[in-house]
Amino acid sequence: MERTIFYISDGTGITAETLGHTLLTQFPDTTFQSVTLPFVNTPEKVDRTIRRINDCAEEEGKTPLIFSTLTDPNLRSQLSRCKGKVFDFFATFTTPMEQALEIKSSPVAGRSHGMGNPSNYLNRIDAVHYALQHDDGVSPRDYSQADIIITGVSRTGKTPTCLYLALQFGIQAANYPLTDDDFEKGNLPEPLRLERSKLFGLTVEAERLHQIRRERRPNSLYASMKQVLKELKAAENLFMREGIPFLNITHMSIEEIAASVMQQASLKRRI
Amino acid sequence: MERTIFYISDGTGITAETLGHTLLTQFPDTTFQSVTLPFVNTPEKVDRTIRRINDCAEEEGKTPLIFSTLTDPNLRSQLSRCKGKVFDFFATFTTPMEQALEIKSSPVAGRSHGMGNPSNYLNRIDAVHYALQHDDGVSPRDYSQADIIITGVSRTGKTPTCLYLALQFGIQAANYPLTDDDFEKGNLPEPLRLERSKLFGLTVEAERLHQIRRERRPNSLYASMKQVLKELKAAENLFMREGIPFLNITHMSIEEIAASVMQQASLKRRI
Repeated sequence: MERTIFYISDGTGITAETLGHTLLTQFPDTTFQSVTLPFVNTPEKVDRTIRRINDCAEEEGKTPLIFSTLTDPNLRSQLSRCKGKVFDFFATFTTPMEQALEIKSSPVAGRSHGMGNPSNYLNRIDAVHYALQHDDGVSPRDYSQADIIITGVSRTGKTPTCLYLALQFGIQAANYPLTDDDFEKGNLPEPLRLERSKLFGLTVEAERLHQIRRERRPNSLYASMKQVLKELKAAENLFMREGIPFLNITHMSIEEIAASVMQQASLKRRI
Repeated sequence: MERTIFYISDGTGITAETLGHTLLTQFPDTTFQSVTLPFVNTPEKVDRTIRRINDCAEEEGKTPLIFSTLTDPNLRSQLSRCKGKVFDFFATFTTPMEQALEIKSSPVAGRSHGMGNPSNYLNRIDAVHYALQHDDGVSPRDYSQADIIITGVSRTGKTPTCLYLALQFGIQAANYPLTDDDFEKGNLPEPLRLERSKLFGLTVEAERLHQIRRERRPNSLYASMKQVLKELKAAENLFMREGIPFLNITHMSIEEIAASVMQQASLKRRI
């Protein structure tokens, strides 16, 4: 069984997609085909959108589901006349929110993922560049400006986690890969020792790391089960010995890793 | 006027934050202080959450606003007894969606930003690594695997855009910085000529680029208005001459740039 979903927004469509996608996860037995239409911010564009929805309804003989985050009341009422079942986020929540806050709302398009506060924007770009400059232990190994230092052996998700923390939360996240060199020395590498309270470890089940590394470098020592087991054990021992909080990310998405790090390290979002 | 907002989720809290944040942008005159409580997935954690909400209500003498994406009906009904005004995402939409789809939902926690499809997960990690390996024209300059190649002069948002496209949509985005060298040659650089249809340009207003570069390297030729004007003019001439679609990103967030690139280049999300 397949249904078509339209995400309609006067901005990027990210909110509409996020909300719709979350609701659809509760219907795991249905297959959804989705169409995102961002920047629908004029009556002409709403008209074109309605035609597209109506064509789809006719072709499929089923009512398409429409998740809309249009803000303008006129465009919303225009869209409501399409042949889809419209889930209108602002219509649904604005009135009860106005009651709870005892204040009238002022509808403005595209605010939610727009430019917003320019200093927030720069913080975020800076955080991305910070993550890139402090990725994989490349010099300078100066972590004084880091909000957090993610550490772990190769391919435990450090880089995507740091980038996600930067983009989503404006967090300055450095990452330091643990290698045999570090384990042989037997104690915390010097640059990490200076910022011990910022450390956060990632680990993963051996079978999964073996598989990930094998895809990257088949038949290498790097990907061998023996090497993987050795590195993971050494890393986890280090985390425990040094009192570094750590996560096993085997069954976690990047979002879950990032949200767990934020929570466990009591980090505050900067944007 | 200040109000406290709680985002309550049995998963990462990202959907709850997105929903609440989007709605709150429509109340620009109120200051909101927000608390995100992710992974609230047991009766005990809901109890602790309720105590925190009730304490806040008492201290502030105002009803806190609660945006909840709890999926479990029992936990939801437990949370509804707190002293905040609860906006319950699933309670609001599940029944009308069940009617529209003519199918019952099956509530499962943490699905929306969870691991999901493992091959999706790997696509995404691969896309992030692809963006890093093809950032700023570093070798290998082989763009055959790219879904899109973002180009423009230094500091026009290419890198954050590529990373966002990777993380959010699983798109393999390379980026190629245009420099004086390229402009002097007078035609499209060789590696780009081979993949002309994948090119997408970014440009920005001179005043803003001047400001961004000045913060990075004060008093440099690189940051001078003269240099900035020269580079931007050369880049825009190149885009127009070669028929490369391009965006002026001066007033755009990373999300808006990414959503516009997806739309204008007709890219399909890979996750």
